[in-house]
Amino acid sequence: MRLGLAFGGCSFEHEISIVSAISVCKILPQVEFCIFLDLEHQFYWIPKSKMSSKLFSSGEYKKCKQLVLGAMDFYVKGLMGHSKLGVECVLSLIHGGDGEDGVFSSLLDFYRIPYIAPRPDACVLSYDKALSKVYAQSRGVKVLPFEVYDRNNAPKELADYPAIIKPLRLGSSIGVGVVGSAQELDYYLDSAFEYDDRILVEPFVAGVREYNLAGFKDKNGEIVFSVIEEPQKKEFLKFEDKYLDFSRTQSVAEASVGTDLQIKLKENFAKLYHQCFEGAIIRCDFFVIDDEVYLNEINPIPGSLANYLFEDFSQVIDQIFIPNTRRIRVDYTYIHQIQRAKGKA
Amino acid sequence: MRLGLAFGGCSFEHEISIVSAISVCKILPQVEFCIFLDLEHQFYWIPKSKMSSKLFSSGEYKKCKQLVLGAMDFYVKGLMGHSKLGVECVLSLIHGGDGEDGVFSSLLDFYRIPYIAPRPDACVLSYDKALSKVYAQSRGVKVLPFEVYDRNNAPKELADYPAIIKPLRLGSSIGVGVVGSAQELDYYLDSAFEYDDRILVEPFVAGVREYNLAGFKDKNGEIVFSVIEEPQKKEFLKFEDKYLDFSRTQSVAEASVGTDLQIKLKENFAKLYHQCFEGAIIRCDFFVIDDEVYLNEINPIPGSLANYLFEDFSQVIDQIFIPNTRRIRVDYTYIHQIQRAKGKA
Repeated sequence: MRLGLAFGGCSFEHEISIVSAISVCKILPQVEFCIFLDLEHQFYWIPKSKMSSKLFSSGEYKKCKQLVLGAMDFYVKGLMGHSKLGVECVLSLIHGGDGEDGVFSSLLDFYRIPYIAPRPDACVLSYDKALSKVYAQSRGVKVLPFEVYDRNNAPKELADYPAIIKPLRLGSSIGVGVVGSAQELDYYLDSAFEYDDRILVEPFVAGVREYNLAGFKDKNGEIVFSVIEEPQKKEFLKFEDKYLDFSRTQSVAEASVGTDLQIKLKENFAKLYHQCFEGAIIRCDFFVIDDEVYLNEINPIPGSLANYLFEDFSQVIDQIFIPNTRRIRVDYTYIHQIQRAKGKA
Repeated sequence: MRLGLAFGGCSFEHEISIVSAISVCKILPQVEFCIFLDLEHQFYWIPKSKMSSKLFSSGEYKKCKQLVLGAMDFYVKGLMGHSKLGVECVLSLIHGGDGEDGVFSSLLDFYRIPYIAPRPDACVLSYDKALSKVYAQSRGVKVLPFEVYDRNNAPKELADYPAIIKPLRLGSSIGVGVVGSAQELDYYLDSAFEYDDRILVEPFVAGVREYNLAGFKDKNGEIVFSVIEEPQKKEFLKFEDKYLDFSRTQSVAEASVGTDLQIKLKENFAKLYHQCFEGAIIRCDFFVIDDEVYLNEINPIPGSLANYLFEDFSQVIDQIFIPNTRRIRVDYTYIHQIQRAKGKA
């Protein structure tokens, strides 16, 4: 399978996507093409040997060959016309807007290019944090209570502190803040509204136990789970931590979790994944409060694809079930009937 | 505003979309370009004078000029390269898959072409009938109870008859049936599974009052409502009715609805529309049971855009608020920081 690794995109997570792609490219022998989407929505074919953050920050990537999307493939732009790149499957690492919002998945569906990433509907449900909660509840998965506010209707005060404020549609902890008291409210509202016109407010549960679990559905229809990780607990992720998180390739040890809780976490993951996230490697971040599992967030395209949670990530790519793109036959029966009815056929 | 009317698409509603477009093209002077999307996902520029159902059913449309999507416009394919078509705004009439599922909206977002149609997230929420219900409930709008089944898990019997069976993701009443008794169950399951791998079952409420209401948000941020229609009641829509429904251009009379109910219907419409369907003209179909309003379905791209519910449809196109496509500036601060940290900058 000639795999194309897509990354970049016009979003606040553009740079994080580059860092993520550089890491995944190194550990995944199947990657044959690196496909960069720049801020102008222009695709570039980046030779694997040139994959470094500087290539992008310096703008030097513009010297690479331009690609355009077309029927069943990417095409290399040339003076004498376009030639097929030869991608058989795209692995998307476009975090945030353009990727996790479903736009890139829609493009690949439209041009009928098989891909490893959530389908557009799964993206929409996980990209918007309020929709994620509504979706989770509809699947029988518990969530913390929440409120949504827009810019013109920002809260003057909150019922309880501490609380978490998050931009409604963004990943990677960007714009997220823990409001300790009423005095801090305006500051954190401003930070979150910088990234979206709407924000989500939920209670901050001090000392809550957190577990991350990744997984995917394989070709036999079974969900394959990663190890369960208990992430580092820090109230604020600093820049270095974030960088670490998106460039991780080192395997982690399984958290020491009792069998009962393990089963519960996997059951909740399956409820969320089944008939929605097929074709994607996702990471669900859970809270555990009084032995009950709550969904914190679904990461539909997690940083460096959560490769560090799997024993052999290269095998994951070979095992994952990739849905077919839809084909429909239309024989114009309906229009022929109209024409007959009008005496025109 | 040089308006492009897009229609067709690879879906079971392909033909209905053609019929719908022919009607809208006639009544809308603003339409400058007709853009047909065929089953192979190839776009064609159809001269307005050639818009007839036969052009498409005969395959003659293939003699028209081919278009490709590119930055900020459609481009006319030519031997000496591509030239801009000059579309300033696209009005989408692609019903069903490719359109109402959000794929075409994603394409227009990606290529940064302004459009009148629901954004991708609004499409996803309304295209899937179970998600619509979950979404409606989250907005405080009542719905009838429902069950979802997949092909491998079809119900052997139902708790109550009559019941309605619908393909989970399809519009235009295709594959929808009213099951009167256990004997009829298999037949209607087969019909619905022909169109989707998943189906939705809900109670059939005999003699329920139905009201259709269309609307959109205007440039002042106000929702403009159409007249309220009480649709013809027929248990099964026949072929001729369906045709009628998608080619309607004749204005309808307002249903005789008391002021209280009018307000309730409009309030429910607004709850569903606000901060989700901006940029689209949608039609919500409601049930009224014991003076309570229930959402039946959201039509994110209704047949012939429900033009017949508005007094002056041409004005609607001039008044509608069209969201901007998102632009984000990235200055590579993050990557520069990494490079400095590594001593590379």
